[in-house]
This record gives sequence, C-alpha cells and structure tokens, in this order.
Amino acid sequence: MAQKPSIPKGTRDFSPEETARRNYIFDTIRKAFNLFGYKQIETPAMENLSTLMGKYGEEGDKLLFKILNSGDFMKGVSDNELSGHDPARLASKLCEKGLRYDLTVPFARYVVQHRNDLQMPFKRFQIQPVWRADRPQKGRYREFYQCDADVVGSESLMNEVELLELVDTVFDNLDIRIELKLNNRKVLAGIAEIIGEPDKIVDITVAIDKIDKIGIENVNEELRTKGISEDAISALQPLLTLSGSNEEKLSVIERILSGSETGKRGVEELREVIDSFDARGHKCELNLDVSLARGLNYYTGTIIEVKAKDVAIGSITGGGRYDNLTGVFGMPGLSGVGISFGADRIYDVLTQLDLFPQTITSSVKILFVNFGKQEAAMAARVVKELRQAGISAELYPDATKMKKQMAFANAEKIPYVGIIGDQELETGRITVKELETGTQELLSAEEIIRRLS
Amino acid sequence: MAQKPSIPKGTRDFSPEETARRNYIFDTIRKAFNLFGYKQIETPAMENLSTLMGKYGEEGDKLLFKILNSGDFMKGVSDNELSGHDPARLASKLCEKGLRYDLTVPFARYVVQHRNDLQMPFKRFQIQPVWRADRPQKGRYREFYQCDADVVGSESLMNEVELLELVDTVFDNLDIRIELKLNNRKVLAGIAEIIGEPDKIVDITVAIDKIDKIGIENVNEELRTKGISEDAISALQPLLTLSGSNEEKLSVIERILSGSETGKRGVEELREVIDSFDARGHKCELNLDVSLARGLNYYTGTIIEVKAKDVAIGSITGGGRYDNLTGVFGMPGLSGVGISFGADRIYDVLTQLDLFPQTITSSVKILFVNFGKQEAAMAARVVKELRQAGISAELYPDATKMKKQMAFANAEKIPYVGIIGDQELETGRITVKELETGTQELLSAEEIIRRLS
Repeated sequence: MAQKPSIPKGTRDFSPEETARRNYIFDTIRKAFNLFGYKQIETPAMENLSTLMGKYGEEGDKLLFKILNSGDFMKGVSDNELSGHDPARLASKLCEKGLRYDLTVPFARYVVQHRNDLQMPFKRFQIQPVWRADRPQKGRYREFYQCDADVVGSESLMNEVELLELVDTVFDNLDIRIELKLNNRKVLAGIAEIIGEPDKIVDITVAIDKIDKIGIENVNEELRTKGISEDAISALQPLLTLSGSNEEKLSVIERILSGSETGKRGVEELREVIDSFDARGHKCELNLDVSLARGLNYYTGTIIEVKAKDVAIGSITGGGRYDNLTGVFGMPGLSGVGISFGADRIYDVLTQLDLFPQTITSSVKILFVNFGKQEAAMAARVVKELRQAGISAELYPDATKMKKQMAFANAEKIPYVGIIGDQELETGRITVKELETGTQELLSAEEIIRRLS
Repeated sequence: MAQKPSIPKGTRDFSPEETARRNYIFDTIRKAFNLFGYKQIETPAMENLSTLMGKYGEEGDKLLFKILNSGDFMKGVSDNELSGHDPARLASKLCEKGLRYDLTVPFARYVVQHRNDLQMPFKRFQIQPVWRADRPQKGRYREFYQCDADVVGSESLMNEVELLELVDTVFDNLDIRIELKLNNRKVLAGIAEIIGEPDKIVDITVAIDKIDKIGIENVNEELRTKGISEDAISALQPLLTLSGSNEEKLSVIERILSGSETGKRGVEELREVIDSFDARGHKCELNLDVSLARGLNYYTGTIIEVKAKDVAIGSITGGGRYDNLTGVFGMPGLSGVGISFGADRIYDVLTQLDLFPQTITSSVKILFVNFGKQEAAMAARVVKELRQAGISAELYPDATKMKKQMAFANAEKIPYVGIIGDQELETGRITVKELETGTQELLSAEEIIRRLS
C-alpha cells in the first residue's frame, strides 16, 4: 500500500469552497482594475535567473526557487566547482531558470522587452502566483498570489490619486472598512536632513515606526542608541506627537521641514494627493502617517498602506511611487507608481468578518434524482433547459437508492431536488422539493426556471 | 548597458490583447463547467517528485522540471553519486520537488489526500498551467494551461453523455463548429481479440488510425509488417470501410464482434452514449470512429476527441473513461471520466476564423483629455461617476499637448474622448468626440453614461 500522498510544505490545495472564495476576491479586484483602465498581462512562471538574481538583495537571492537544467545538467561543471562547497556558485551552474519571486521584476523585464509595442503611460495589472523559499509559518506560504496594478511612464500625482480611488473602490466592493495610510519618502528624507542626520533616515524611520508599540520615551532612547544627537531628537519631537486632521499634520510638518527642499516637495506632493482624493470623495478613512516606511529602499515618493479597521492583521495592501523601475534592464528614467493587494490576508479578513457572500459557494441550484433510464432521460432534458437558461443543474448519474441521492444533495448544500417518477413521466410536471423547508410542489420546466432564476 | 532581457525558451509573455482573448476562452469554459455542476479546485504548481515520478513513463520523467532543494543542496550527496554521471539519480538527490506536468496526477493525489472531505461522485474542474521540458516548437510550449473537467466515483455512462453535452455547449458558446469523435477502448480490445491478436491492439489501432492518410492498401501492408495474419487482416476489412450513420456503423461492428464479450460491451456502451446524447439534442456533429485511439494505454472505456470543422489543426479537446485513477496512491477501484480543453489550439482556431468578439479587447470606453488642474479635477469627478455606473473610463494623467493625448486614445483604440476646457468648466457639460466618425457633442455626465452603457 502506497503512502498517503502529500504536497510540499508551504504550499496549499484549495478546495471548491476555498477556490470559489478566492475567485470572489480576484474577480472583485480584476473588475476594479479593468474599470480603472489597467490592462492585464501575464508573464511566465519561470524567468531566467539572470533576470531575477540581484534584484531582491542577498537574502532574496537565497529565497529564489531554482530549476535544475534539463538533460545532462552536470555537463560543464568542473570538479572544482563540485567540491568547492559554494552552493550559490554551483547552483548558478546547475540552474539557469527560477520561479518568479514577485510580479514587479517580471513587469520591469516585460516593459523593457516590449518597449516598442507599449503606449506610455502604460497601466498594467497582473494577478499571478509567486514563489519564495521562505520558512513556512502561519500566514506565510511558499506559493501565493499577488494582485498588482502599476502605471509607468507618467510622473503625474493624478496616478497616485487614482490608485487611492482604486483601493477605495475594491474594499468598498468587498465591504471591508479600511484605513488608508499615506506618507512620502521625500518627507522622511527631509526629516533626516533637517535634524542633521541624512544618512540615518532608515534608523530614524524604524524608530518612529515603533511609537505605537513602545511609546515616545523608548523611541527617543532607541534613537540615542543609534547615535542620533540630543538636538536632533528634540527637533524630532513635534513629529512624534502629530495629531489632528491631515491638513493640521501637514502644517506642522511643513513648518519643521521649511529648511529642506526635498522635505518641502514631499509636503507639497502629500497635500496635492490628499486634496485631490478628498475632492473626488471617498469612503475609506485617509490618514497621513509619517512613521509609515514601507519599502523604504524602493519607494521614492508616495507610500501607501492599507489596514483593515475591524480585524487586527498586518497591512492588507500597499504600494508607492518608484523611480527607475527598468534601469537595471538598460532602460533608465522610467518612473511609476503601483499597488499590490494581499489576497491571502484579504481572505482572512473576509473570513473573520463573515463577509463572503453566501451565493458564491453554492453553485448547483437543483439536483434531479435518478430513478432509472426513462426517468433520467426526462430529467436530462429538463436539466438541459435549465442550463440553457443559465441555471446550474445536474442529474445524479446513477440510479441508486433515493436516500443516498438525497444525502448527496444535503452534503453538497444543493437547495432544491427535482423528482421524476411514474406520475411525473405521465404529466410532464416535476416534483420540486426545497430541502430546507421540506415543501414540495409540482412544477413545469418553465416554472422551475422562473423559480430559480 | 545591460543586455536586453528575455524569457526562457518555450515560455511566453501575454500582452493585454492576448490576455483578454485567453480570458475569454477560460471564462467561457469556466462558465460552462460551473453550469454543469463541476467544482473548481486549485493545486500547487510544485508537487513532491515522489508524486510525479513514474506516472508519465520514462520519457515523461525526463520532461519534468525539477526544483533544486533550498539551502545546502549538496549535503548528503556522496562523491560516488557526484562522479557517477547518472543525471537522473543525482537529480533525485538534489531535488525533491517538481513542477506539475499535467492536472490529472495532481487531481488523483488531491482525491486521495482529501478523500474524507469529498462527496462521491466528485465532479471537479481545474484551469491551471502545467510545465514540460519538451523541445519547444511551433504550437508546443514549456508552460501552457490545461482546462480539465473530471467526474470520479461513478461508472454511469450518464457522465460520458454529460461531458459530450458540456463540449457541445462550450464550442457552441465559442461559435466554433466541431466534429465530436467517439470510440470505446473495449471495441478496440474486441477487434484485437476477434482477429486472434489480443496482444497487438496497439499495432492494429495505430495502423487503422492512418487510413485517411495512406489508404486501405497501405494499412493492410503495415499490418502484415507487424506480423498480423492474412486471416486477421481480412476479418478486419469491414471495419476499415465503415460508413453510413453511427447506428449503421454500430450494426456492422456488433456483427463482427459478436464473438467477443468485451467487444459487445463496448458496442453497448457506445450505443447508450450515442442514443442518450442524440435524445438530449446537440449542435455538434457526432461520429463514431473506430480508428480513434487517443490515450490508448490510459483509457478503459469511452474515448472522446474533438476536431474543428473549419480549421485544419489537430484535436482541440479530448478525454475518456479511465479505471483506477488513484490506485497508484493507494486508493484502488475509483473509476472516472474526464475531458481536457486545449486552450492554445482553441485560441488559434478563434484567431484564424476571426471569432474573438470585438468587445473583449477594448476595455476603456472614454479617455478624458487633461488640460490642467482645474479641468482635470472636473474630469476626475465625471470619471468617478462613469466608473460607478460600470463604465471603464480614464483621465489622462499629465497635462501634456492635446495632440499627444489624442494619439494615445487612437493607439489604445479608445472609442470616445471627453474634452473639458473653459466652456465646459462653465456649463458643466462635456464635449464628447467619437474618434471613428469625428462627431462631437456636448453631453452631461448622465447623458454620457446613457450613451456608453
């Protein structure tokens, strides 16, 4: 007897119910992407390792799944390389392809490769799985979907505003209440500049980011440990206690950053994005948050993060403005802004708040019981009519015991059962039983269609 | 300057237009699958190699993409194995995971792994990519989608009939005229038995299969080369010249196979499937074809193949009945029947016959020209209204030259352009220009919605 089969750790099977729920999320996002004029592309699961390596830092390189070359993969590998015990170097000899790690690098590669076919600004979206050889843990998988929308080739802040509207639309359609957090990398750079520590932007931001968790005193202590001067720390204090409306916060920041050109540009950008977004109207809560430092090494302007208001879970969507997406592939100077929806966390939020619509998981509306050849033949014709009317219906394939067929309908949560016996064969009318209430009625095919439409 | 990036051979990028067309195919198939009560599941791209190896024959094993183990993949590999120059053996040490080769083995693995959660009969569908390290050539890729529907846990021929209806529905919805070919493995076995060569079923079928290409004389010659006796060859002749209706063909086959129990069962099965399918009504042409030998080593009953009537291309869909799908994973005796739609070939057929609906590739209905801050603000509010009404609309993000923005609309095949200048700001009505005709009208937001809905 064979061992019970399993799947690689960190990967998942999705049952019909889970798949239906995931499709509901993907379909909602895709619909909004299309409505906003983003165009879907797809790229291969496998990319050349030369495309992927060096794009995610040293740690990222280690997390790439590499694909063993086909055929005689040992050809051309020297004894030295074999015995050298340098796995990274040897891997580069054995493998020339890897699974994509995100959708951003393949997108950059796509833009450069197809630059002559693209109209700028290019608004693209992509909903595909990515793979990371991360240590699996709760909520972290080795295969998971990313849902990314980006626009490249335009520096206009209208793109940022549109992405915020997109976020607002998606979560409104999913019925999830969100807080949209906004920041700008130029503000962070301005802060570091103004307090005389332009190189310590990361340390400063990391410390500020902890304020909710550890309090002001401990943040200041951490800044001291990082070698930030007392003058600088006191210059920072008003930023640590920002409160009030977004405009009130902006005024404080503006005053503090009045000596930094970069910082002032950041404030201007934030103000334009916030004002335009407010002018267009939105349902979500929008908060300026100077401690937001998501993707600090990557983003160059606007930084966006989304939190669910009613579930304690990390960020469920994030994005920002970047410069020079494609420079590494030989096409410099292309700026863009993008957003990425975290499907797995959105799934968890919808589950915890019980927000998945009932309708998405019960696709079959009526099961026809099979009493034998003649009855089944009539049932099959009715099933065909129902399907032509767009109603999902099925005939139980085997003429087994009624009890077994009813148990099947119950287990599959099929709401109605159609019964065709002698009487029904004669009259052409079908007994339709609603399983929840137990009520029965004699209906024609047309009446069933009307009832179930 | 970096080298222009590329993708691995045999893989593809899909442009927005191609993706929209592929989605049209997948959506049409998915919709029919749902209507017929098949439930979608998804399985991981990576399976354990122990799940995949040995399931596709020796050649298949070589075509599996294997994934290099993470971390120190050389640990535990002996010098002997390294220098042994046995790539297959060494690969099994370096890799424990591989990319799925088809959707059938993962489905079998899924059924066994989740057997306690499944209701039988279990109707599942799956639309996901698979990977094969085949030599790439025209129409053959290393990554491609399969669209499979299977029902397991029921031996009723009603399942076969339903799959034929499903095929009929999908191609009717795609507007592709098809010929559905039907055969039964038991008939082939009966033929081999009756002519006294039960072991030569494959040789006989391969020879018969060529009749359209090489003619009867050459088929007979080939049978002789394979060591089939003259008596057997003459017993075969009526089968090589079958003609007339399906029932006429069945009568001839029935007479010839009257001495074979297996053959007679095959004829009975074919007759039941054909009669039931005909009784339910169908649009496609249905032809019994005893030379159809698709997946001979796999199928045990019904064999199905679909050809496009108006394009010379191989089979675009195929399937059949199999026994013991899950035996190899320790769950014997599970019979099923399935069908697989070939998305790439269907794409080619739709392209050649120019059958893709125009609507699927032009998603944005109206582009608003950007003349500056104030004008853009008004345009943004109109765009928001249109989107809320389900109309895909966008605002050009930059206030660049009108000519450039119009060129963008033209290149993107956006049918309407909305223009908001001084006059429009004042009156609140928008100039809407239809690009094809050049006609202009002054419309309110509501009127635009009515026009574009």
